[in-house]
Amino acid sequence: MSELNFVSKKIDKVATEGKRFDTETNRGVGVVETKYFHVASPPNELILESGEKLGPVTVAYETYGQLNDQRSNAILILHALSGDAHAAGFHKGDEKPGWWDDMIGPGRAFDTDKYFIICSNVLGGCRGTTGPSSFNPQTGKKYGLDFPIISIPDMVNVQKHLIDHLEIDQLLSVAGGSMGGMQALEWLVFYPDRLRSAIVIATAAKHSPQQIAFHEVGRQAIMADPYWKEGYYYGGHSPARGLAVARMVGHITYMSDVSMAEKFGRRLSHNGKPRKFSIDFEVEEYLHNRGDHFVKRFDANSYLYITKAIDSFDVSRGKELYEVFKGNKAKVLVLGFKSDWLYPASQSKEIVKACKLAGVDTTYCEIDSTYGHDAFLLEVDEETHLVKHFLQKASSERGEYGCEVRGYAI
Amino acid sequence: MSELNFVSKKIDKVATEGKRFDTETNRGVGVVETKYFHVASPPNELILESGEKLGPVTVAYETYGQLNDQRSNAILILHALSGDAHAAGFHKGDEKPGWWDDMIGPGRAFDTDKYFIICSNVLGGCRGTTGPSSFNPQTGKKYGLDFPIISIPDMVNVQKHLIDHLEIDQLLSVAGGSMGGMQALEWLVFYPDRLRSAIVIATAAKHSPQQIAFHEVGRQAIMADPYWKEGYYYGGHSPARGLAVARMVGHITYMSDVSMAEKFGRRLSHNGKPRKFSIDFEVEEYLHNRGDHFVKRFDANSYLYITKAIDSFDVSRGKELYEVFKGNKAKVLVLGFKSDWLYPASQSKEIVKACKLAGVDTTYCEIDSTYGHDAFLLEVDEETHLVKHFLQKASSERGEYGCEVRGYAI
Repeated sequence: MSELNFVSKKIDKVATEGKRFDTETNRGVGVVETKYFHVASPPNELILESGEKLGPVTVAYETYGQLNDQRSNAILILHALSGDAHAAGFHKGDEKPGWWDDMIGPGRAFDTDKYFIICSNVLGGCRGTTGPSSFNPQTGKKYGLDFPIISIPDMVNVQKHLIDHLEIDQLLSVAGGSMGGMQALEWLVFYPDRLRSAIVIATAAKHSPQQIAFHEVGRQAIMADPYWKEGYYYGGHSPARGLAVARMVGHITYMSDVSMAEKFGRRLSHNGKPRKFSIDFEVEEYLHNRGDHFVKRFDANSYLYITKAIDSFDVSRGKELYEVFKGNKAKVLVLGFKSDWLYPASQSKEIVKACKLAGVDTTYCEIDSTYGHDAFLLEVDEETHLVKHFLQKASSERGEYGCEVRGYAI
Repeated sequence: MSELNFVSKKIDKVATEGKRFDTETNRGVGVVETKYFHVASPPNELILESGEKLGPVTVAYETYGQLNDQRSNAILILHALSGDAHAAGFHKGDEKPGWWDDMIGPGRAFDTDKYFIICSNVLGGCRGTTGPSSFNPQTGKKYGLDFPIISIPDMVNVQKHLIDHLEIDQLLSVAGGSMGGMQALEWLVFYPDRLRSAIVIATAAKHSPQQIAFHEVGRQAIMADPYWKEGYYYGGHSPARGLAVARMVGHITYMSDVSMAEKFGRRLSHNGKPRKFSIDFEVEEYLHNRGDHFVKRFDANSYLYITKAIDSFDVSRGKELYEVFKGNKAKVLVLGFKSDWLYPASQSKEIVKACKLAGVDTTYCEIDSTYGHDAFLLEVDEETHLVKHFLQKASSERGEYGCEVRGYAI
């Protein structure tokens, strides 16, 4: 089974299931363009959490829908490790929509008939926002490993500059899964007055040793690639094989044992077996395809910087977790998935417990999915239901939001 | 924490807990030597499952204890992916004993006062038995990738030759964890008349897509190493970095989330941080140490061949699993561990269910350990209790063995 088949199958499934939440036609946001904003133009520089300075910093972002007159309907979407600003719609000429297109559009979970949706590429990324593959004004060359170490709070700081630039005093919501959920948590803690709600999906309040270990293996695979050249490979070969291996490790952790078994079983791949240790099983072929695809659109150094930012993430900063949420007026929706073993539901529950202990208006829904961590991108039907309802309540600022949908553990 | 500290801590724990099963002193089997047996001397060749021929084949093996006059007290120990023939005792000058020393010795689970214990390095290995790093008589060079693809049944076939050579008609038992458990299952199916019992620990009747995927990532890491040179690296640099990455992936899967959290938490490593993306967390340092240690004693091509043998493993061969166990007279003990997510207890239960359906005298015990897959090497106390009791019943050939130890799910 080729990757394309797999993707199209998923999209078919999602498209069918999503229809009931959609308007008459499944039209989405249509053709969109990425915009750019310069956070820190010289001589202004961004001060990073580490104390290092960085500038200029450019942010790539997209928006969908219209900002209302009160500027009160803006929602910031936060992407995961390999995501970018292109969350919805189509870039001109592209056949594939943005990474969360099923969730963003007219009538969809993040309804562009009602809300103004913003999504930006994170600091350290390689999809338009300043990162290690950007030009370093100090040297006139690409940064490589001269790029400073960044953190999740640094990413959020850059997003705050963007929100200031867009003249939005208070976001209706911030929402993201995986690393996006970590950014949502930092938004809650750093800028509690700048948002009315947060949607925190399939994530953790801090990275666990097992999660760090999986990332470290990926980093080692990249750095073991002779083309990595200590990070200064721009202009020559890129460490594509190392990055592909890193991505393969990632993909295993994004799926569940069950979803892998359902998708591949032990079916053999029909690749002609040109030599020993080439691909035997479909699952191997799938991982190869995903790895090969990834290296075409992602920078290996960005993978190093962003995974390190995730690994160092700990929203509690050594305090009791509930303390950082104290006094927070935002409404919080936390979503976990039963088969997600990378960011298990138990980690979502820790966040919920801490929020509740801090007196934050928090709702938890655990979705009974077999897709593993990928569920946050695939369980569109269930997420749409929950997110729509939650945003409606957050918008109205009245009443309590309860997870009353049957079939979910609350 | 260095690897040595970790290992010595474990050994301390195990030594203390193991004492109650030991004789007066914890003396073990003392100094031992590896012996060699030539299975297929030219012009004789071994016919592999694939139909290919291989010869000569040498087997490295060790024995502990004495074979009784009836030649009825022999137990074959089967090692896992990275193991070897040196299961117990000390090689002259070594400070570290064999890999299952806590379980093998006077008074221990595999009691050398009662039983004659045999352990051999598997076909395809790199610790004395013929494998890809052995000399190919056809070329006068080391095999490299000219070595034929091997399977778990091929490994078992070689062991059968060794047992013939030792003039043992019927083994009292075969026992192994992980890949060792797969060999035990193949012994049951291929040579049902040659054994009276089998101890099958933390394993599966066939490799799942997720298990295959983890192996494939390791193989890709090895093959992406420029020193791998399509497998013909002998005499030059070895693909040590690739192999270290493969081992790191393995180690993550051998531990549980809980055991990692207990061992490392998010403690920082104090390594002076010489440069970016060096080690920050203790868990990273541990994985690096394990990876670096492994490449000194293991051959990268053996890693490829043996993981492929495991991935292709399916004891049912497309039949219903219970069918292959039908009519088997051996007693079977299956052990699983609650926190083992690589070979989850559910896979052990599948084996038990199939055996019971086939009318085989089978006992299942699930040990409540937090060590993950590594538990089969670390839960010596519990395993000793169960194995001792089981072997006693298997020896006496009378009575039924029931798992009556409190605290275990049966």
